[in-house]
Amino acid sequence: MDGLIVLNYKTYDETTGDKAVALAKLCDSVSRETGAKIIVAPQFTDIYRISREVSIPVYGQHIDDIKYGGNTGSILPEAVKAAGASGCLLNHSEKRLKLAEIDAGIQKLRSMGMVSIVCTNNVAVSVAAAALGPDYVAIEPPELIGSGISVAQAKPEIVSGSVAAVKKVNPNVRVLCGAGIAKGDDVKKALDLGTEGVLLASGVIKAKDQRAVLLDLVKGLR
Amino acid sequence: MDGLIVLNYKTYDETTGDKAVALAKLCDSVSRETGAKIIVAPQFTDIYRISREVSIPVYGQHIDDIKYGGNTGSILPEAVKAAGASGCLLNHSEKRLKLAEIDAGIQKLRSMGMVSIVCTNNVAVSVAAAALGPDYVAIEPPELIGSGISVAQAKPEIVSGSVAAVKKVNPNVRVLCGAGIAKGDDVKKALDLGTEGVLLASGVIKAKDQRAVLLDLVKGLR
Amino acid sequence: MDGLIVLNYKTYDETTGDKAVALAKLCDSVSRETGAKIIVAPQFTDIYRISREVSIPVYGQHIDDIKYGGNTGSILPEAVKAAGASGCLLNHSEKRLKLAEIDAGIQKLRSMGMVSIVCTNNVAVSVAAAALGPDYVAIEPPELIGSGISVAQAKPEIVSGSVAAVKKVNPNVRVLCGAGIAKGDDVKKALDLGTEGVLLASGVIKAKDQRAVLLDLVKGLR
Amino acid sequence: MDGLIVLNYKTYDETTGDKAVALAKLCDSVSRETGAKIIVAPQFTDIYRISREVSIPVYGQHIDDIKYGGNTGSILPEAVKAAGASGCLLNHSEKRLKLAEIDAGIQKLRSMGMVSIVCTNNVAVSVAAAALGPDYVAIEPPELIGSGISVAQAKPEIVSGSVAAVKKVNPNVRVLCGAGIAKGDDVKKALDLGTEGVLLASGVIKAKDQRAVLLDLVKGLR
Repeated sequence: MDGLIVLNYKTYDETTGDKAVALAKLCDSVSRETGAKIIVAPQFTDIYRISREVSIPVYGQHIDDIKYGGNTGSILPEAVKAAGASGCLLNHSEKRLKLAEIDAGIQKLRSMGMVSIVCTNNVAVSVAAAALGPDYVAIEPPELIGSGISVAQAKPEIVSGSVAAVKKVNPNVRVLCGAGIAKGDDVKKALDLGTEGVLLASGVIKAKDQRAVLLDLVKGLR
Repeated sequence: MDGLIVLNYKTYDETTGDKAVALAKLCDSVSRETGAKIIVAPQFTDIYRISREVSIPVYGQHIDDIKYGGNTGSILPEAVKAAGASGCLLNHSEKRLKLAEIDAGIQKLRSMGMVSIVCTNNVAVSVAAAALGPDYVAIEPPELIGSGISVAQAKPEIVSGSVAAVKKVNPNVRVLCGAGIAKGDDVKKALDLGTEGVLLASGVIKAKDQRAVLLDLVKGLR
Repeated sequence: MDGLIVLNYKTYDETTGDKAVALAKLCDSVSRETGAKIIVAPQFTDIYRISREVSIPVYGQHIDDIKYGGNTGSILPEAVKAAGASGCLLNHSEKRLKLAEIDAGIQKLRSMGMVSIVCTNNVAVSVAAAALGPDYVAIEPPELIGSGISVAQAKPEIVSGSVAAVKKVNPNVRVLCGAGIAKGDDVKKALDLGTEGVLLASGVIKAKDQRAVLLDLVKGLR
Repeated sequence: MDGLIVLNYKTYDETTGDKAVALAKLCDSVSRETGAKIIVAPQFTDIYRISREVSIPVYGQHIDDIKYGGNTGSILPEAVKAAGASGCLLNHSEKRLKLAEIDAGIQKLRSMGMVSIVCTNNVAVSVAAAALGPDYVAIEPPELIGSGISVAQAKPEIVSGSVAAVKKVNPNVRVLCGAGIAKGDDVKKALDLGTEGVLLASGVIKAKDQRAVLLDLVKGLR
C-alpha cells in the first residue's frame, strides 16, 4: 500500500504517558489490520516506552543542534535514536529552526540512519528546505491551516504547485501534506495531487473515536 | 544522613541510553550501601527507563513553560512527571530561563508535587531566585567554575555569604553548592559552609571509576 | 513636582521616524509648560534624533547583554548611551529577558551612569527583580492588563501590596505602575498607592489628541 | 567600476557613535575618489546620523519579523528604512534567523524597495537561501573563516562552486564573498571566481590605517 500517515503527538493530555502508549498501540493495530503505513511522533519522554510496545516506526518531534557534552535540558539527537526513534520532525510550525540548524539536523539524522521530515509554510520555503536534501518536506499551505478548508475542497494547485516546485529543485525529496487533513477523502486527494502522505495531529488525537478516524483516514491510502 | 548529592547527567555519551541506566543503577547501589541521598537528573528520553530501574529520585533537567496543547518539540511538565520524575532543575547555566519562566516553573512543579532546584550564577541572582520561593537554589560561584579551585580551597565567604543572603530573603529555601566539587572533602566543606548538598556532573560522569568517585563524595556527607 | 510619566514608544507607526520626533517634542513642550517629569523611550533608530531635539530624558527600550565586538544586529549598551539615552527599560513583557541578563543589564546601566527600569508581571517576580537592585521596578498587575480596569477602579491592595513587597526586599528601589493608566485620575491613584510614577504607551500614542491626553495625565502628578 | 564592498560595522568600539560616523565619512571619501561602490552597515542607533552625512548607501544589520504595534525592544523594518537605510543584512552568522524569518525578511525588504543580503555558511544553505530570492547571498565558506587563509590562497572551487550552485537555483541572485578578504588581491580573486563583491568587517575596522586598507581593497575592484 502506498502513502504514509504521520501522527504528530504534540503535547496533549491525550498524548502524554499511558495515553500516549495506548494511542500508539491503536495505530499499530490499525496498521497491522489494514497494511497502512502509520508513524507516530510522541513526546521525548514517551519514545522509549512506545518503541518497546509497537512495531510501527516511532519518530521524534525535534532535535537540537548539539553534540555529546554539556547541554543540560537540550535534545541530543543520539538520545532520541537510543530511545528507539527511527526518524524525526524538524522545523515544525510550533518549533521553527534557524536555517543552519535545519541543514545540520538533516545531515545529522542522515548520518545516524534516521529519516528527516522538514515542515514548511509556503512554496518558497518548501523549495529552500528541499534544497537542503531532507527525506520529506511536509507542506502546510496557509490557506489550509485553521481555515476549516480541507485539502479535498481547496484549489488543487495549492498542493500540486508545491510538489512541482519541490521536485524541480530536488526530485528525490518526497512531499507530505501537513494541513487540511481530516478524512479519508482528504488523504486520497493529497495523494492524487502528488504528495506521498499526510502529517496530522488533533484530527486523530482529539477524536472521540480515535480508531474510527484512523480507519477512515487509511481508506484514502492506496 | 544529612546532605544531598544531585548528579546532573547533561548530554554526555556516558549518560545516554543504556549507559545512563547503568550509571543510575550505580548511584542507586551506592545510595543503598551507604544511606547517602543521591538524585540523578538524566535526559528526557531516559527518565522513564531509569525511574523503573532505581529507587533513588529521578529529576528532569528542564521544563518548558507550556500547557497541554500544540507545542511540538517542547518539554511538557506533566510529561516529565508522568515519565517518573519527582523534581526538576530550572535555569541551569546551559539552559538559562527568563525571569517569568523561572517563576512559572517553580509554581508548576509545586502544583504537581515536584521539587524545584533553581541554578544561579552570583549572590544577587541567588537572592532574586530565592525570592521566587523554590525548594532549592544551586549556586555556582563564578570564582569556582572551571577554575580548578575546589570549594574546600576557596575563600569560605564566597559560599557562606550566598547562603546567608538567600536565607535572609527566604529562610525556607535550601542551598546547594553547584561548582568546585570533586571530592568528599569538597562535599564536607560545602555542608560546613551552610549548604545542604551539592550539584555536580562531569566529576562523576567522566571518571574512569565512577563508583570510586561516588563513594568518595559520599564520605563528605554526614 | 513629584511623580514620573514614562512613555514607552514601542514600534507603532505613530512612533517611527518623523512622527516619533514630533511626539517627543510634544512631551517636551508639555513638560516645560507644566513642570511635569516626562520621559520618552523611542526605538533605537530614533534615539539620536530625538535626544538632539528635546530636553526631557530619552531612554532605550532594551539592551542586549553584549560587549564591544562581533555581535551583528544586536543592541550594544554603549551605542544606546552614545546615541543620547540616559536610561533604559529592561524585561518589558514584549521583550522578556533571562534572569542573569536582567542582573547584567542593571549592572551595566549603572556602570554607565544610566537609569534602569525593570518590568515585572506579578508580586513574586517584582520582589525578585528588586533583589537585583534596579533604580525602578515597573509592575504590570495581570488584573489590570487589557482588562479595561483602571488602577483607580481596581482593588487598592493589588498595587500597594506590590510596593510593600518590593520595599521590604530593597527600600531603595522605586516602583512605577505599568498598567491600568489612561487618565490623570489613574496617575493620582497610582501615586496614592505608593508608586512614584507610571509607565504607559498606547493610551497616549494612539490618542486622537495626544496633547490633551498628556495634559490630563500630568494633572494626576503632584 | 564593477564590484561591491560591504562593510559590516558589527558592534565594535571603533564603530559606535562618533567613530561610526567618522568611518562612514572615510568610506564615502574613498568611494568618491576612486569610484568604488562601498556600502556601510552600522548599528541601528547610528543609521540616521550616518545617512545624513554620507552619499554612499547605508544598510541595516538586521530586521525583526514584526509589524507596527507592540514590540518593545525589537527592530521594526519600517524604522530602519525611516532612519535612512536602503538595504539590510539578514541571517548573519552572529544573528542567525529561522528559515521562515529569512523568507519574510526578504519579502518585507523588497516590498519597501530595500536590498537584501542573506548570509550563509555552506553550499547547501546558500542554495536554500537563493531559493528564497534575495538580492544577494553572502557566502562564508567555513574553510575561510578564522583560518587565516585568504580567498586568493584557497582552493578556487570553494567559492566558484558556491556561485554555480546559487546561480543554478536562481540566476538572478548575486553572490558576495563573506570570508577570507583582507587585501585588494582577495577582492580581485573573489570577483574572478564569479562573485560580485565582498562583505567584510574587522579587516577594515580594526586596521591602524583604515584609509590605507580601504584603498588597497578598492584596487581589487574593476
